[in-house]
Amino acid sequence: MENEWIVSDYSLDENKLLKNESIFNVSNGYIGIRGNFEEKYPEKYKTIRGTYINAFYEDTPITYGEKAYAFPDSMQKIVNVIDSQDIDIIIDGQKLSIFQGTLKDFSRKLDMKKGCYIREIWWVSPSGKELKIKISRLASLDHLELFVIHYDIEKVNFDEEIIIESSISGDVENFIDDNDPRVGTGHAKILSVNSITLEDEIMQIVSQTKNAKNIVAVTTKHVCSSTYECIFEKTDKKAKSIFTIKPGKKVINFIKYNIYTDSLRHADVVSIGEEKAKSISKIPFEMLVKTQEEHLSEFWNLADIDIEGDEKLRQGLKYNLYQLFQAVGRDDRSNITAKGLSGEGYEGHYFWDTEIYILPFFILCYPKLAKGLLRYRYNILGLARQRALEMGHKKGAAYPWRTIIGKECSSYFPAGTAQYHINGDIAYSYIQYYLATGDLDFIKEFGLEVIFETARIWIEIGHFDKGLFKIDAVTGPDEYTAIVNNNYYTNVMAKFNLKWASKLYDEFRNKDSEFIRELSKRINIEEKEVRLFEKAYKNMYLPYDEELKINPQDDSFLHKAIWDFENTPSENYPLLLNYHPLTIYRYQVLKQADTVLAHFLVEDEVEFNIIKNSYDYYEKITTHDSSLSCAAYSIMASKVGYTDLAYKYFIETARLDLDDTHGNTKDGIHTANMGGTWMSIVYGFAGLRIKEDYISLSPKLPEVWEQLKFGFLYKGNHIKVSMKKDKTEIINEGDSRINLRVNSILYEVSRGKKIQVQN
Amino acid sequence: MENEWIVSDYSLDENKLLKNESIFNVSNGYIGIRGNFEEKYPEKYKTIRGTYINAFYEDTPITYGEKAYAFPDSMQKIVNVIDSQDIDIIIDGQKLSIFQGTLKDFSRKLDMKKGCYIREIWWVSPSGKELKIKISRLASLDHLELFVIHYDIEKVNFDEEIIIESSISGDVENFIDDNDPRVGTGHAKILSVNSITLEDEIMQIVSQTKNAKNIVAVTTKHVCSSTYECIFEKTDKKAKSIFTIKPGKKVINFIKYNIYTDSLRHADVVSIGEEKAKSISKIPFEMLVKTQEEHLSEFWNLADIDIEGDEKLRQGLKYNLYQLFQAVGRDDRSNITAKGLSGEGYEGHYFWDTEIYILPFFILCYPKLAKGLLRYRYNILGLARQRALEMGHKKGAAYPWRTIIGKECSSYFPAGTAQYHINGDIAYSYIQYYLATGDLDFIKEFGLEVIFETARIWIEIGHFDKGLFKIDAVTGPDEYTAIVNNNYYTNVMAKFNLKWASKLYDEFRNKDSEFIRELSKRINIEEKEVRLFEKAYKNMYLPYDEELKINPQDDSFLHKAIWDFENTPSENYPLLLNYHPLTIYRYQVLKQADTVLAHFLVEDEVEFNIIKNSYDYYEKITTHDSSLSCAAYSIMASKVGYTDLAYKYFIETARLDLDDTHGNTKDGIHTANMGGTWMSIVYGFAGLRIKEDYISLSPKLPEVWEQLKFGFLYKGNHIKVSMKKDKTEIINEGDSRINLRVNSILYEVSRGKKIQVQN
Repeated sequence: MENEWIVSDYSLDENKLLKNESIFNVSNGYIGIRGNFEEKYPEKYKTIRGTYINAFYEDTPITYGEKAYAFPDSMQKIVNVIDSQDIDIIIDGQKLSIFQGTLKDFSRKLDMKKGCYIREIWWVSPSGKELKIKISRLASLDHLELFVIHYDIEKVNFDEEIIIESSISGDVENFIDDNDPRVGTGHAKILSVNSITLEDEIMQIVSQTKNAKNIVAVTTKHVCSSTYECIFEKTDKKAKSIFTIKPGKKVINFIKYNIYTDSLRHADVVSIGEEKAKSISKIPFEMLVKTQEEHLSEFWNLADIDIEGDEKLRQGLKYNLYQLFQAVGRDDRSNITAKGLSGEGYEGHYFWDTEIYILPFFILCYPKLAKGLLRYRYNILGLARQRALEMGHKKGAAYPWRTIIGKECSSYFPAGTAQYHINGDIAYSYIQYYLATGDLDFIKEFGLEVIFETARIWIEIGHFDKGLFKIDAVTGPDEYTAIVNNNYYTNVMAKFNLKWASKLYDEFRNKDSEFIRELSKRINIEEKEVRLFEKAYKNMYLPYDEELKINPQDDSFLHKAIWDFENTPSENYPLLLNYHPLTIYRYQVLKQADTVLAHFLVEDEVEFNIIKNSYDYYEKITTHDSSLSCAAYSIMASKVGYTDLAYKYFIETARLDLDDTHGNTKDGIHTANMGGTWMSIVYGFAGLRIKEDYISLSPKLPEVWEQLKFGFLYKGNHIKVSMKKDKTEIINEGDSRINLRVNSILYEVSRGKKIQVQN
Repeated sequence: MENEWIVSDYSLDENKLLKNESIFNVSNGYIGIRGNFEEKYPEKYKTIRGTYINAFYEDTPITYGEKAYAFPDSMQKIVNVIDSQDIDIIIDGQKLSIFQGTLKDFSRKLDMKKGCYIREIWWVSPSGKELKIKISRLASLDHLELFVIHYDIEKVNFDEEIIIESSISGDVENFIDDNDPRVGTGHAKILSVNSITLEDEIMQIVSQTKNAKNIVAVTTKHVCSSTYECIFEKTDKKAKSIFTIKPGKKVINFIKYNIYTDSLRHADVVSIGEEKAKSISKIPFEMLVKTQEEHLSEFWNLADIDIEGDEKLRQGLKYNLYQLFQAVGRDDRSNITAKGLSGEGYEGHYFWDTEIYILPFFILCYPKLAKGLLRYRYNILGLARQRALEMGHKKGAAYPWRTIIGKECSSYFPAGTAQYHINGDIAYSYIQYYLATGDLDFIKEFGLEVIFETARIWIEIGHFDKGLFKIDAVTGPDEYTAIVNNNYYTNVMAKFNLKWASKLYDEFRNKDSEFIRELSKRINIEEKEVRLFEKAYKNMYLPYDEELKINPQDDSFLHKAIWDFENTPSENYPLLLNYHPLTIYRYQVLKQADTVLAHFLVEDEVEFNIIKNSYDYYEKITTHDSSLSCAAYSIMASKVGYTDLAYKYFIETARLDLDDTHGNTKDGIHTANMGGTWMSIVYGFAGLRIKEDYISLSPKLPEVWEQLKFGFLYKGNHIKVSMKKDKTEIINEGDSRINLRVNSILYEVSRGKKIQVQN
């Protein structure tokens, strides 16, 4: 087993090239660059050559065969921005291609401690000239605009001049596949070049999107250790620097500093780009690597998980956490896309994935980034209010199912706008943050308004029926069933949302009545409304089936026929790519955890037996066609005592992208699943739950594991946990006492204290 | 009151121009021309200048923001074909426009006995020249390709030469409104000109659609009674004949014979067009009018309805029947569009409207056209089979919700493909035809296969649940509720379909076993399958609510909140143009009759009390936003004894287009509603039903009516009915004895016999 901190690949297998472009992406939450080859592949190989800026979007029209009221007219779409990857080495007038000549050695490595991706080539040209090249790339965590490529070239058996051509190109387009709803649609050509300049050895391209008029610039400066002559060329879409490197030095260092600036974040993309290119290119590459490693070391100190006895998984696990860290937005306007910044799948949109599958990790392991993700929802609250009005609601906020800037981008409402549960998911994540951090100031400033406005929607769409509060015509997380009445998940989350809205209102009214007065005035809250919230949540209808002793997914679910799994060939999965939605809707069949997920998120609503029966029932009829499914099933398998099954589902999540088990890693990594991996361990095997007055653990290690070590922050205290088969050790490295329950016993753990518990 | 046979209008009101274009369309089931002005309006007035050929279509792509499996890629769209309406009269170098100069008299009249539309103008030019012009148009019922315009021009106070410019133009486009789902969408420019020829005083334009490559030609020949000189001109899109009419004759007759030929029906659009233009232009206009009148007289003899005591309605009624007659396709490849050939609304598609709202009239009053409509469904059976496979069914036929050539054109499946009831509707119409005509040969040749293949789908989509046969995930006729389980209407129609499939199979097996052997071989029927049909229909689950004693619209309908009608301003109707579908789906609110319609179509399933309770329940929550609704509510109001209410709903249907009560007559007349008018009388007030062994009547005349007279064909016998308040008289003018029930008494009525019954 290689170093678990390094993900490597030694193949030039045509079938793995696309997938590896995603796997070896480098990003920093602002920019992301796919792991393409600087010198490109031969034309016969498919590539998705991509560079993305988080939240940098184009508005693209949505057309409908039959359009109905309040269907969105347009959607935001992530843009494949200006390409700064191109570098060619020319020997004897021929461009180096590792697909020609003799490749004596080849490797690609992602170093997750250093935050650096390295490609090494040992190559003999057709004319016998031998080169060793080490290409390092990083997207800097300290200088978010910087994507740097470092070439270390050794001329093994010759000393003639070589030419290095380095370009930036505005001739880019997005990747389109109209037949896979998970990939981008519409027009590929989004960006057009405004200007190309060459000045003081700095190349700059400024491009713009047609509709949204968003502007992006790349400003590129090179540093070369050897003597060279340089000339510049430009066409209407490209700028090129041609370096003729003089003989005399065996080893050549060549660095390409690319600065990305965009009009959403930078007052002047041109001059800020130039300034940063000039100043940042003065920082030696080694220094950049060093600070990158320091930055990551802070992260790993909090987030790392160690498993003894399961070597193969350690790497997958670290990879997933690393990807989450490099994918998450660093400003309040960007969030984390379904694919991170590694591909264009799902158009670069933000979904509920953030709240339910990704935020738990950041809340417990890196809360300063969690805060940004939460503030993003606060920032788009105005647009969510507008959408609520559009949808015919009198008040409240209806968060968009998928979006970049906050406007609904879902053009298929049965599995989009109908998923009202996103409102509950967002409120839930604020409460989780609050319970884990105790940070009431943050809730006051950014949370209460969101929690209140989301709660209002339940009153708008629900109604009292014989005393019970019911919610009709919604779609739950499982998209293989749509537009139903009383989806259990939705009702549970609505209940949670309404409960906390009234609870927090009452708490703040007692503690900080002035704030509540001001808020009430601003968003027109009346006592009467809060009491209605209370009445609704206390009488919330949660479907229950007496016969099966389970919670039905919705009012009609159990009356349908069960999907004919036996006669469904394996190539017909995922079902959504092989059956019309109506055919799927007609049956009891799940794309992903629904009631089972609700039983995880809000476990106190329901008896253990019902949770277990429900698990048994739904597990049989779930396809896991969504990458969000296995994690939930793993966590809940742990809960109900199926540790082997929990482990099986966990394994599915842990190497989903590294092993491309869903076959679509080419479109980007699956960020929610990566969060789910962490949850499968921490919420699943370690049984962690954040309760109102304490945090609890309930260890159930898989058979093959000797030891599990992980840490988290609870109310500001760094808690380290070490679990073995027989005992669990918990150390409070923080400054204050915490309440911690292990299995059924509650402990008070003071600062610096360690407790040991027999499992 | 003017002559009830003539629909007239004397206004140039800008707000009525568009509507009148639809109202005064002339058509013959093959071509239809809107009532535009030959000389056009001034540019400031909106116009939809249109000429349509039934079933002549273009394939236009459907794009989706998020496309799922088996969503149609393209749809067929009716084409606004080459315009042959242009005629200008030029005096003193100025084109006549009745919006300038002095208009001394003006009228538009549609003569429904003659089948001719006449526009009369008495006009004084700005320079004082006075003209009386009578323009007559007809779309010939005997020469379907012919659209003829006849000008009768009287020079009242001058005798100088006048110029008549007559053009045909390929510079046409479709009418698009992306914000109203009931109007066309996509690209307006569909047709491009292939060639323009001028030869032997014959002008011809040949145009073609881009994708489907369908070709249409107009071949035009003029006949003029006066001495003239003629020159021809052409551009790349137009051909023009310029007639200089010499002085000396006070009255000028000018006739423009336009022959439409298309590549779907004509082997060679060019030469057949030329031939027909030459031969037909030899027929004097008066002769064309005469044969048109004869043709119509046969129709009126069978179809006319007379009401004494309600003058205003007589005209509306005749108008509706007349429009149906001129809209219905005369070949097996065309049907009747939602808007006839009077506009482009709903893209010229065929819906279930034909089977449920229009065929009853033709079956009883003009069965030879009914047969064509039924054969159309037989002809597209192959494509319906293909669609069934696409939808994941193992066998059977899934008829398209909307189509021209037989492929599904619905891009919004919750109110399209999900309406599986169209299968039942089609089977139902075959059975109705059979019961009314006794024509088993037709069923054998064109019916049984359709009835069998449609029945198969219920087995595909239904399932047995605790012994009951249930059908999930469908949408009923009411499009304000979508994708539900056990829609009462759907289940009732499925039951009917399955029942008749097994019944007819058994009957034919006994009578004509060779045919059944051949059919079984061809479409692979086994006895086992027929017995499964039987089991399914005998155990069909039909929702019933014990408490309300009504049939719920579906499993979940009654559990939803009732729409807040009180707080819905009248301008928010139709709801579909003012609320998101989800908002509408959340409530008990109907666009149109659903369960109430089922109670009409298959009344023997259910007790009278349940019918009445259901009527009371649904009537309160139906918006009648669909033009298909009022007729059903009128018929069933008659049934349950609310004659006043029946009359109120009937009135809504009777003059819907003439009075433009839905505000969208501009997009074309509402053919289904027109059929509904007839049904409101014959099925409603006269209470007619076609039963297995007899036909029955149950008279309940509205208060204001003195007498109602109508006729129909029953098993080939022309039956004439005259109803007064107190008594009903029935005459059998046919050749055979029929069984007829009036109220509860069954009569045998021999040929030539009359019976009188006290109501």
